Amino acid sequence: MKRYKCIVSYDGSQFSGYQVQPNKRTVQSEIEQALATIHKGEVIKIFASGRTDAGVHAKGQVIHFDSPLSIPIEKWPIVLNGLLPDDIAILKTEIVDDHFHARFSTVGKAYQYRMYQSPIRDPLKRKYAYQVPYQLDFEAMKLAAEQLLGTHDFTSFCSAKTEVNDKVRTLKEISFYKTDEEWVIQFVGNGFLYNMVRILVGTLLEVGTGRKKPEDMRPILEKRDRSAAGKTAPAEGLYLWKVFY
Amino acid sequence: MKRYKCIVSYDGSQFSGYQVQPNKRTVQSEIEQALATIHKGEVIKIFASGRTDAGVHAKGQVIHFDSPLSIPIEKWPIVLNGLLPDDIAILKTEIVDDHFHARFSTVGKAYQYRMYQSPIRDPLKRKYAYQVPYQLDFEAMKLAAEQLLGTHDFTSFCSAKTEVNDKVRTLKEISFYKTDEEWVIQFVGNGFLYNMVRILVGTLLEVGTGRKKPEDMRPILEKRDRSAAGKTAPAEGLYLWKVFY
Repeated sequence: MKRYKCIVSYDGSQFSGYQVQPNKRTVQSEIEQALATIHKGEVIKIFASGRTDAGVHAKGQVIHFDSPLSIPIEKWPIVLNGLLPDDIAILKTEIVDDHFHARFSTVGKAYQYRMYQSPIRDPLKRKYAYQVPYQLDFEAMKLAAEQLLGTHDFTSFCSAKTEVNDKVRTLKEISFYKTDEEWVIQFVGNGFLYNMVRILVGTLLEVGTGRKKPEDMRPILEKRDRSAAGKTAPAEGLYLWKVFY
Repeated sequence: MKRYKCIVSYDGSQFSGYQVQPNKRTVQSEIEQALATIHKGEVIKIFASGRTDAGVHAKGQVIHFDSPLSIPIEKWPIVLNGLLPDDIAILKTEIVDDHFHARFSTVGKAYQYRMYQSPIRDPLKRKYAYQVPYQLDFEAMKLAAEQLLGTHDFTSFCSAKTEVNDKVRTLKEISFYKTDEEWVIQFVGNGFLYNMVRILVGTLLEVGTGRKKPEDMRPILEKRDRSAAGKTAPAEGLYLWKVFY
């Protein structure tokens, strides 16, 4: 029996999120089904670095599972990709020691949030970036982002449904960059609470439109109240970019 | 009654092509349905610069139609986009004179073909760029492209099903450029035959892999035989980029 770590990419637009749910198409159930096929029907449970919601994409989700099969390590992606639907791909597989756990061994994550500015929707981006119909003040957003860096209690920036008790996290990086047609905000931190990136983005967007100011960020953090922050930005702009171990 | 010219963008992945077909979801039928809604059920026929096949995208398709409605010109896209599905958008509308015809007034078109090099598929690009799993010799492809520029009988580079008699077209530009993650080949010409861009791409790809040589292009043209050229490259990489009048 060996433990395998896989880097997984998926287009979240046709999934009801990562995690198995009855009668729903999920990333986890598709991968577990592919694994069951090559294990003669045996259930091989997979463990991910964390869930992603419906519509959220992944460029570098990480999972692990245990298998007794002796498939050469470089063949694993080929075998699994042959069984998986087109909107999931195993990018890389490696053998890890038995203490590795895709979720509990995580030391950090990077997310990207993509948006484009246009008064008219772009049909080709509609599932892959958030359409911002108004002009944004990115300089104000960058100032606001600086206020959010570091170690804070992020209660104001997570879903009220978050079940973990310790809501202290460290945001190491919030960087802004522009591709050919999109603005990207990259978040790197030691961990992220439920909906945290999307609420951070929603709040930064309110700074970008002038509804909130950069200096409002610290008071929002201090309130420890979800209703103090901005709206939850839509799922389609969010990408789980990389998981660090 | 006024004639309106619209620039239209669509994500072709969920359409059975541009042109109306019974019981199929097509771009034309969606736009005509939206127009019927604002014309109290009256059928308003639209005319496009040309068809696009199933899976082919458009950034700058052009259509025209006639309407008696007195909607302010800048409101037309807003009204129509409110009725259209998310995978079509009217980018711009202008009033044109009665002699303008989206198809017959065309003097040229630009297409882009997008591809990415990777041995493993990218789930996020699968409907928007063609995955090339092997290395390509772009220098050889550029040399081959030069041989195809100019005015030629493109019988070898169109579907055997092409119905027009005159297969002489002028290719003004075939340019290669790279975005963050993709290679793009842009074709500009005075007109394109059925499947012409996809067969040009398929043939250039065979040059890129060494199966054909740049100096094979002229003999292929001279044969005037579809079977002399390469395969038809897949629809997902193709974008109708711009139509010139």
